[in-house]
Amino acid sequence: MLKLAPSLLAADFSTLGQVVKETADAGADMLHIDIMDGHFVPNLTFGPDLVKAIRLHSNLKFDVHLMIENPDLYLKAFVDAGADIITVHVETCTHLHRTIQQIKALGAKAGVVLNPATPVNLLEPILKDIDMVLIMTVNPGFGGQSFIPQSIDKIKRLKKMITNNGPCTIDIQVDGGITLDNVQDVINAGANVIVAGSAIYNNQALSDNIKRFKEAMYAANA
Amino acid sequence: MLKLAPSLLAADFSTLGQVVKETADAGADMLHIDIMDGHFVPNLTFGPDLVKAIRLHSNLKFDVHLMIENPDLYLKAFVDAGADIITVHVETCTHLHRTIQQIKALGAKAGVVLNPATPVNLLEPILKDIDMVLIMTVNPGFGGQSFIPQSIDKIKRLKKMITNNGPCTIDIQVDGGITLDNVQDVINAGANVIVAGSAIYNNQALSDNIKRFKEAMYAANA
Amino acid sequence: MLKLAPSLLAADFSTLGQVVKETADAGADMLHIDIMDGHFVPNLTFGPDLVKAIRLHSNLKFDVHLMIENPDLYLKAFVDAGADIITVHVETCTHLHRTIQQIKALGAKAGVVLNPATPVNLLEPILKDIDMVLIMTVNPGFGGQSFIPQSIDKIKRLKKMITNNGPCTIDIQVDGGITLDNVQDVINAGANVIVAGSAIYNNQALSDNIKRFKEAMYAANA
Amino acid sequence: MLKLAPSLLAADFSTLGQVVKETADAGADMLHIDIMDGHFVPNLTFGPDLVKAIRLHSNLKFDVHLMIENPDLYLKAFVDAGADIITVHVETCTHLHRTIQQIKALGAKAGVVLNPATPVNLLEPILKDIDMVLIMTVNPGFGGQSFIPQSIDKIKRLKKMITNNGPCTIDIQVDGGITLDNVQDVINAGANVIVAGSAIYNNQALSDNIKRFKEAMYAANA
Amino acid sequence: MLKLAPSLLAADFSTLGQVVKETADAGADMLHIDIMDGHFVPNLTFGPDLVKAIRLHSNLKFDVHLMIENPDLYLKAFVDAGADIITVHVETCTHLHRTIQQIKALGAKAGVVLNPATPVNLLEPILKDIDMVLIMTVNPGFGGQSFIPQSIDKIKRLKKMITNNGPCTIDIQVDGGITLDNVQDVINAGANVIVAGSAIYNNQALSDNIKRFKEAMYAANA
Amino acid sequence: MLKLAPSLLAADFSTLGQVVKETADAGADMLHIDIMDGHFVPNLTFGPDLVKAIRLHSNLKFDVHLMIENPDLYLKAFVDAGADIITVHVETCTHLHRTIQQIKALGAKAGVVLNPATPVNLLEPILKDIDMVLIMTVNPGFGGQSFIPQSIDKIKRLKKMITNNGPCTIDIQVDGGITLDNVQDVINAGANVIVAGSAIYNNQALSDNIKRFKEAMYAANA
Repeated sequence: MLKLAPSLLAADFSTLGQVVKETADAGADMLHIDIMDGHFVPNLTFGPDLVKAIRLHSNLKFDVHLMIENPDLYLKAFVDAGADIITVHVETCTHLHRTIQQIKALGAKAGVVLNPATPVNLLEPILKDIDMVLIMTVNPGFGGQSFIPQSIDKIKRLKKMITNNGPCTIDIQVDGGITLDNVQDVINAGANVIVAGSAIYNNQALSDNIKRFKEAMYAANA
Repeated sequence: MLKLAPSLLAADFSTLGQVVKETADAGADMLHIDIMDGHFVPNLTFGPDLVKAIRLHSNLKFDVHLMIENPDLYLKAFVDAGADIITVHVETCTHLHRTIQQIKALGAKAGVVLNPATPVNLLEPILKDIDMVLIMTVNPGFGGQSFIPQSIDKIKRLKKMITNNGPCTIDIQVDGGITLDNVQDVINAGANVIVAGSAIYNNQALSDNIKRFKEAMYAANA
Repeated sequence: MLKLAPSLLAADFSTLGQVVKETADAGADMLHIDIMDGHFVPNLTFGPDLVKAIRLHSNLKFDVHLMIENPDLYLKAFVDAGADIITVHVETCTHLHRTIQQIKALGAKAGVVLNPATPVNLLEPILKDIDMVLIMTVNPGFGGQSFIPQSIDKIKRLKKMITNNGPCTIDIQVDGGITLDNVQDVINAGANVIVAGSAIYNNQALSDNIKRFKEAMYAANA
Repeated sequence: MLKLAPSLLAADFSTLGQVVKETADAGADMLHIDIMDGHFVPNLTFGPDLVKAIRLHSNLKFDVHLMIENPDLYLKAFVDAGADIITVHVETCTHLHRTIQQIKALGAKAGVVLNPATPVNLLEPILKDIDMVLIMTVNPGFGGQSFIPQSIDKIKRLKKMITNNGPCTIDIQVDGGITLDNVQDVINAGANVIVAGSAIYNNQALSDNIKRFKEAMYAANA
Repeated sequence: MLKLAPSLLAADFSTLGQVVKETADAGADMLHIDIMDGHFVPNLTFGPDLVKAIRLHSNLKFDVHLMIENPDLYLKAFVDAGADIITVHVETCTHLHRTIQQIKALGAKAGVVLNPATPVNLLEPILKDIDMVLIMTVNPGFGGQSFIPQSIDKIKRLKKMITNNGPCTIDIQVDGGITLDNVQDVINAGANVIVAGSAIYNNQALSDNIKRFKEAMYAANA
Repeated sequence: MLKLAPSLLAADFSTLGQVVKETADAGADMLHIDIMDGHFVPNLTFGPDLVKAIRLHSNLKFDVHLMIENPDLYLKAFVDAGADIITVHVETCTHLHRTIQQIKALGAKAGVVLNPATPVNLLEPILKDIDMVLIMTVNPGFGGQSFIPQSIDKIKRLKKMITNNGPCTIDIQVDGGITLDNVQDVINAGANVIVAGSAIYNNQALSDNIKRFKEAMYAANA
């Protein structure tokens, strides 16, 4: 099932409550929230209190992407703040199995993220334990970057690996440089949860952007 | 000269643009912005893009308090985003003199922060180079904590040290647990820049809170 | 050849000399000693001086599992203290080949440990250099956890990889949640060195526990 | 009031339950337990489970000296295991005031430790919050080292600083190389809690060693 | 195309300008420069200013091998100093794709290095982006070590992986213990860029050494 | 006694053997060698093998300034390479007393370095153990910076502290931005070992530079 997850990273940070409400009203399926600590990635963004503040403005699923070192220390704070899904980078988790179990024990869905140069076969031992894999299609840290074309092969490889793994419902999410021009390619390759930032939050009407993006998504899947 | 610096940490994060505008309109002298990286302190808050977003909503002086490890990596980003003053923790700066010079070279004022258990005499070699000292009156990381009473002695000690250092204009800032009940004590001890969070941003009218707080401040100094 | 390695982690720490002696007398093949540094895993346990102290109480093979960062710094201390086998985590060794060579140069056997989410194919370049692989069947750090069922597939995968690698005698060790109920499953999957903690050191007679466990092990292999 | 704290570091680790019982019976005032993580100091020793195991064997006050990085992560585990006093190194605590408050909130007494080259004036802002200062009289990490003679001046300096601080009951503890030959010197300089390792646990009768040591201590104070 | 890259690590550091000039005159194809930071590897060697100083003495291609943590911080300094190729260790680069792009954006060729125990399949997602792979045939850190025989299989595996990847021109470089006795083996396995240290810089005439080495290389390829 | 220590950092790195020989012949008293690891300071320079290589070219005292993290790991390598004096930064040494003892046990003289913002009173407990204090008069990392004027007060403060400490022979060294214009000021303030870089190694004759510099030094002391 296709889902669109607008990324707060591209929104106007001075009025996030209103942004979140409008995003839900316009038909988004989830809200992608990028948490950066200035250590794992060279940028800082939001923390749990900000997530809690915007949680009051909508019932949208909150998909919290932790681009932070030692994510175990903050899992509870983000679930308490209202996260529905938490994804952690395989590059930051020495004890990945434990981290995934902790997210689930807190009552959230759990996913794993791969940087562009990280191979999908590292996921083999954890595949049965996770709800989603996020394939970064740019290097994490900033909005507005261009899609890395080699990602298409990587999505296909992951899709095949999941299929071979037996019947399952692992979502494949992509994040970075997704536009109306390439969204069908990533869906055809196997992705079904689409993060979009500057394609959604820009000078045009938010509801039009979301409508157009979802139409493009469903056309791909046809 | 006395200055009131409301701390954004206690404000409603879902509508920061409006908060900043109202804070300026109500007569605040500066805006205190707490940047936390989840490493130096056990909490994450804001980054440069958020500072840039709220910068558009007022001309208030932005006083950016970096509770982050390796602050040198982010000095330029915060000045570019609109910081007027940057303070760094002495506990995080191995090369403190260089960090201070870099802040000034970027065009901002530079200050140094001390944790509650860090002695003021560590500042002796850097005193001639800085515009402000921030004495933490709670342990940094969260809003809503109680003022540490031993801070009064520490402020006095710093005030004496600055006075002995010759004619100078180093501001003494305090942050943490400052209320209408203790603001006169810290001012009488020597502080002149007052950070206040939950005493300013609460269920009462912002303009009344700021007015009352400034009256209390000036009464102390009388 | 099947071997039983009782894990000291579940024993009474106040009388380890006697524990070690009784463990040897009861027919254990090795003693598994978990070294934790509070950094690689969230627990602290023993150091080299403790290993040296209990070394005097038996001739049992000491199988020292280093759950510590920078293990190179402590290899000599543990061999000097009496370790016969040292295993290091692939997740902690940037220069794994050198670490393995150092263990062997000190006169001990060398093994590599994999966390539950670490894939076996990371071992491919080091397989010819090691005496044992330890597959963690719980997340390392504490005794008393439940066996992770996906481990069975992982043991099979490793067994196949070793077999394909040509004639060799690499032991496959498992550690975590092994009981009388699942020991035959792990042996049938390919494991031959069995670590058991709470199944061995509990309120029942140690010699009975060890006897029963070895019987179950050999029944599996039949 | 003078107190003798035998250091478990010099005892026989293979029979710690019995050691602890005999130490209490012989008249020791406290038991000093050195926790080393292999990171802050180049040695590993004990963890919380070992403290818990020996806790069952006596009612002696347990004085737990944390020679570990990030001690905040283990305060609760050691208090739960039976620690009565916890001391942390000023060199490891960026947020020392918070660490001290946490120890007290857990119900234990709190102390601060200084390495040989760390000056006592760093303690000035925390003096009113602590129950004990431990002055290392050797470099921490190993037993059996020789007393550093400059420590005498340091103890005097601390004693004077505490006295000037007003009426208080801060214990001054010393640890490292204390023998019958120098114990009176450190007491005359101002120390009142004496850690002794190899002078207590050696080939002679434990009860005689403790008796002789306490006699020497009280003779000094006379 | 076969290339010989003498390694400066084995040269006389007191007269590097002359060494570089003679190396170029003797017909070397590149100069291999080992940068060690004392953190990633247990040795320190050269920095950017030294590269800049020897850059003036020849037009040889400079092949700079970064054995340092956080290589991103030094890419610009080494390219500015005269590096033509920069190789980074996959073990040090959490964001390897970004690091590679940065090297290329600076105008240099980019390569990736694998430690002896690091499997080649980790390179799969980055293969299309790089100009060279360096397979360490000893553990990095010191000159004068012996070639690890398992490296032959690893080179073959990489060669096959590159060939399967489609038409491309990725160089395969080897470094460590390469001599006249084994150079043909590594070339026959698939390597084409040969680093040699003590085989080139020793008590015999440099030009003879280089001539002999290149003859052996070309004989292999025949 | 006044001593001039030309700093290799400003010399021509392509011909260091000759540089060292000429520096000795021209009458320098010591050679200052800056070791940078790219971690403690943002630059990399030399390692032990380079020191060993130039050691063959003169009998000058080698004064090795370790601007590296974890200096304990490299003390032996630098003494073996020919260091006569080793100085370590107080900012890098958690166990400074042990580090100093290790340097002396290796047979070298030992000194401690202070960054510009580090106060001299941190040295109080170690003063009786060291042979030299190096006061950085610029921020360490690069040559060619300007002298920090507040350093004069700091030198005086240190000189007074040493004098009050009783009869002793601790050298006071200064490093950074020392020229013919300010060398007399630092000597009059109390310094006696002068590091000079670009004032010694520049386009003018080395022997003239050294002669002029020493004349200026001795004129100050007159």
